[in-house]
Amino acid sequence: MLSRKDLFKDTLRKAAHAWKRIVELRLTEEEASLLRQYVDQPGYVDLHWGMFVPAIKGQGTEEQQKKWLPLAYKFQIIGCYAQTELGHGSNVQGLETTATFDPKTDGFVIHSPTLTSSKWWPGGLGKASTHAVVYARLITEGKDYGIHGFIVQLRSLEDHSPLPGVTLGDIGGKFGSGAYNSMDNGVLRFDHVRIPRDQMLMRLSQVTREGKYVNSDVPKQLLYGTMVYVRQSIVADASKALSRAVCIAVRYSAIRKQFGSQDGGPETQVLNYRTQQSRLFPLLASAYAFRFVGDWLNWLYTDVTQKLEAKDYSTLQEAHACTAGLKAVTTSATADAIEECRKLCGGHGYLNSSGLPELFAVYVPACTYEGDNVVLLLQVARILMKTVSQLTSGKQPVGTMAYMGKVQHLMQSKCAVKTAEDWLNPAFIQEAFEARALRMAVNCAQNIGQAANQEEGFYERSPDLLESAVAHIQLIIVTKFIEKVQQDIPGHGVKEQLQNLCNVYALYILHKHLGDFLATGCITPKQGALANEQLGKLYAQVRPNAVALVDAFNYTDHYLGSVLGRYDGNVYPALYEEAWKDPLNETVVPEGYHEYLHPLLKQQLKLSRL
Amino acid sequence: MLSRKDLFKDTLRKAAHAWKRIVELRLTEEEASLLRQYVDQPGYVDLHWGMFVPAIKGQGTEEQQKKWLPLAYKFQIIGCYAQTELGHGSNVQGLETTATFDPKTDGFVIHSPTLTSSKWWPGGLGKASTHAVVYARLITEGKDYGIHGFIVQLRSLEDHSPLPGVTLGDIGGKFGSGAYNSMDNGVLRFDHVRIPRDQMLMRLSQVTREGKYVNSDVPKQLLYGTMVYVRQSIVADASKALSRAVCIAVRYSAIRKQFGSQDGGPETQVLNYRTQQSRLFPLLASAYAFRFVGDWLNWLYTDVTQKLEAKDYSTLQEAHACTAGLKAVTTSATADAIEECRKLCGGHGYLNSSGLPELFAVYVPACTYEGDNVVLLLQVARILMKTVSQLTSGKQPVGTMAYMGKVQHLMQSKCAVKTAEDWLNPAFIQEAFEARALRMAVNCAQNIGQAANQEEGFYERSPDLLESAVAHIQLIIVTKFIEKVQQDIPGHGVKEQLQNLCNVYALYILHKHLGDFLATGCITPKQGALANEQLGKLYAQVRPNAVALVDAFNYTDHYLGSVLGRYDGNVYPALYEEAWKDPLNETVVPEGYHEYLHPLLKQQLKLSRL
Repeated sequence: MLSRKDLFKDTLRKAAHAWKRIVELRLTEEEASLLRQYVDQPGYVDLHWGMFVPAIKGQGTEEQQKKWLPLAYKFQIIGCYAQTELGHGSNVQGLETTATFDPKTDGFVIHSPTLTSSKWWPGGLGKASTHAVVYARLITEGKDYGIHGFIVQLRSLEDHSPLPGVTLGDIGGKFGSGAYNSMDNGVLRFDHVRIPRDQMLMRLSQVTREGKYVNSDVPKQLLYGTMVYVRQSIVADASKALSRAVCIAVRYSAIRKQFGSQDGGPETQVLNYRTQQSRLFPLLASAYAFRFVGDWLNWLYTDVTQKLEAKDYSTLQEAHACTAGLKAVTTSATADAIEECRKLCGGHGYLNSSGLPELFAVYVPACTYEGDNVVLLLQVARILMKTVSQLTSGKQPVGTMAYMGKVQHLMQSKCAVKTAEDWLNPAFIQEAFEARALRMAVNCAQNIGQAANQEEGFYERSPDLLESAVAHIQLIIVTKFIEKVQQDIPGHGVKEQLQNLCNVYALYILHKHLGDFLATGCITPKQGALANEQLGKLYAQVRPNAVALVDAFNYTDHYLGSVLGRYDGNVYPALYEEAWKDPLNETVVPEGYHEYLHPLLKQQLKLSRL
Repeated sequence: MLSRKDLFKDTLRKAAHAWKRIVELRLTEEEASLLRQYVDQPGYVDLHWGMFVPAIKGQGTEEQQKKWLPLAYKFQIIGCYAQTELGHGSNVQGLETTATFDPKTDGFVIHSPTLTSSKWWPGGLGKASTHAVVYARLITEGKDYGIHGFIVQLRSLEDHSPLPGVTLGDIGGKFGSGAYNSMDNGVLRFDHVRIPRDQMLMRLSQVTREGKYVNSDVPKQLLYGTMVYVRQSIVADASKALSRAVCIAVRYSAIRKQFGSQDGGPETQVLNYRTQQSRLFPLLASAYAFRFVGDWLNWLYTDVTQKLEAKDYSTLQEAHACTAGLKAVTTSATADAIEECRKLCGGHGYLNSSGLPELFAVYVPACTYEGDNVVLLLQVARILMKTVSQLTSGKQPVGTMAYMGKVQHLMQSKCAVKTAEDWLNPAFIQEAFEARALRMAVNCAQNIGQAANQEEGFYERSPDLLESAVAHIQLIIVTKFIEKVQQDIPGHGVKEQLQNLCNVYALYILHKHLGDFLATGCITPKQGALANEQLGKLYAQVRPNAVALVDAFNYTDHYLGSVLGRYDGNVYPALYEEAWKDPLNETVVPEGYHEYLHPLLKQQLKLSRL
């Protein structure tokens, strides 16, 4: 209920307090990161640690790292990541900001030539940052060498005022009443701002004293490592956000009662309704599914890093496609699922005290940042098309695309499911999902092949390509879930519960995308109906353990921040109590009564000045 | 950017000003309602005119109407509609508030026996209303006669203070930064509050001076008329809300450019991307579809009213199912579509200045109020199941269910589509949708029939029943769109454009629910692929007219309230200008710098008290 200014000031306070504790307690980097996570409010520190520092680490020379990282580590400077511009988002190559080398002064002139070249959106830029990594077109000797990163000081370290030539501001209110309004997403314009030459990030390429542009021998592929890392953490965050929403919705569905009373008896817990289960349990299963695929991505990142160090780039493209696609599918599904959880809480989900509106508002940008989901899925589709085209040449696909090597089998395999229970067999599920993904990709490739021009064909078929990419990514999620539940899992009965969730996830996706499976002939209508029948049985099995399965996320009431999701289930007194805290309840008769209500009721409006 | 209190005061001011103008200009009821609509901010007047007055009109005796309506018409009292309780939403029969007749005083004692019986959610209740229609269990002579309506005064007409025994408050902040936070959704508890007997709404039933409960001879079916009316207006509102979002997204997609530049040339308008079209044009088509089905519902309401007056109840059940289902399908689709439009605007859609976050936040309650969408769809399903069971008995289904009479043909008809263009034939579309809806309903009925117990079967199959109800309602929307474009439509070329949109809507739904059509054998996979191919061609035809088709909604920039949706397309300067209005930009150095940023940067946090 804070105003924008108070909310922002509160963020500054929390960040300072957290940093004070981090220093006092000598927390490790990992501990410090966890502490920040539990502050649970977007703020400039996220960008400082999550983007500014990694950019310098990844793109700075050793010398540059030695100079800048200690300053950042001690917060002697606050940094942000200034890439997107008012008129330019996903297409980094379209950025307009220029960095022109001036040999006279041995430095760059950073300039915003147009209104649309204003930096726009960077978190922490508007009010907090003193420095930024700025992406700009490097121009030297009259030639445009494309987009490069530069460290630029924005504000005085003495009084925080913007340096000459630098215009800075906040870009205004955003979705929700809290959410990202605690963040100073900013606007930045440069009017011929000069920086020394050594503030160009020079690990991959340099400009010499004479103004020559030189590529270093560091392979550009190294940049992919960072991208895999960032997107892996977004997938992990998707699971966290979804599990919070699901925890609230499941717990409240066990408390809330509606209908079903006979002769004045108690009503039925809404969690017992099959319609509630059929909407909620797939989301519960998704929270677990995204958790496990996130864990696996974490392993993949380590693997990619090791291979990069060994200069083995053979799996890089596949790893990139896989992380890009998983980022897109899990964030879109999570955004939709949070809103669905809100609706599943009925009217009360619309109250801020339920925690769900803010959970949604703070989560949805994940569908857009770090690669718009549609753009990412089209990248996945490109690699899928490339892989299909190479299948005949005998080149074996690797990693999560290895299944495509079984093309001859999968193009004509027939699903062997005969009973509803057969759908509990992971081999049947796996093959149905593999056949669906492969056949959709092959269909797309054939349709594109018929076009006069490949690019034109790709463009015309791009909606189908999105669906094909989603099918491929859903296969990965299902596969990693199956692999997980085939491992040893400690705890009595835990494995069975996870197996149920794995089957719920797979059969829910199958039902939701039944058209894909039927159109490609992977399963018959009868088998589709059996899958749906089995899904209903699985819901009944999940029901008795549903609350335990969300308790297992182990969120405190404080962190969950929802009166509906309280661990003790004491929802209604909490809702009632929470209401009275609204500022509107400070007086019984509202402000404005004497000016606007009393004259209305007394028919004296004509006399009033309104 | 107002605080909750200021926002609420602003609503009071706007409402008073609007009323002053309505009186001064002697506006008709219809004109006044339009004026309120363009105020475009939820407020207590919505409930006064939309629920309080109609409740008295519908359920009050002539005498009661004569007494209370003039007071309401002149705003000498402000009324609201107090039905839902903290623990009770959709299930009206579960309400706990009691109205016990006391023959000694010839009045009722209104009481809230439990915390969960607190009235909760009614708009206008928290701070503005002086009176309410309160729904409570009528108890007389020791017997509970179920839920009835009572007119109860809540506040003093002199100083607005709550009357003795009445506890009133606002229930707290809600989704969004504006949205319904301008409304004083309220909480109300009664501690044995006495009202005279004649404040029970007695048109349908009465309590006599002696405490006898008596039904009047007015048929209860009359109440359905009001419900049809309210839900018809919700469908019309869905189209309005959706058309606003689509207008913003289409216009901005024509301005925004991304990728596609060759050799530094200009980038491509995102509206030209097939992926953008495949997400956006179906929503444009939906806005028109909901408009036309809303117009038709308006006719249906007149028809129902006339039949009710003639005591003809033959179409009532069908009309009720149809309006309930259309309310559910159009509001759910609209809520999702507004959020999709927001995502289609990229990052900038997340800014409040885009207008989209608030459009979403203010719209989503429509999925829950006036009947939760899932509950409504199950009601539709019940009537579908009843209709199927009567098909063999020769009872001919009426109205929008008439197609079910063609059961023998539709259960085995084969779709005759051979080319993509065949899908432009409305007869093929119509039959495919009829066959899909009927076969899904018959499948459900058969599955329920196999259950040992009908109610148990209905429960087990309820997720399928929801899908069956949706299929039936989508058929109605498609049918009414087809009927519309078969009429004369003035304006050169307008008919062709509407035909394109009609086909887009139908084929988009077909593609989205392909599993339904294939599983029931209504179309073949090949025919499904042809439909998808035709859809792509239709997008290309809609593209050149897309902007004109949203300009046709004729919204002013002021009403649209979106810098992205500006008519003149001058988006980027407007975005830039809007940003500076944020309170955070009042100072260059933010509040909190001296307390929290300066000591952080100077490593002096240890000394600070935070």
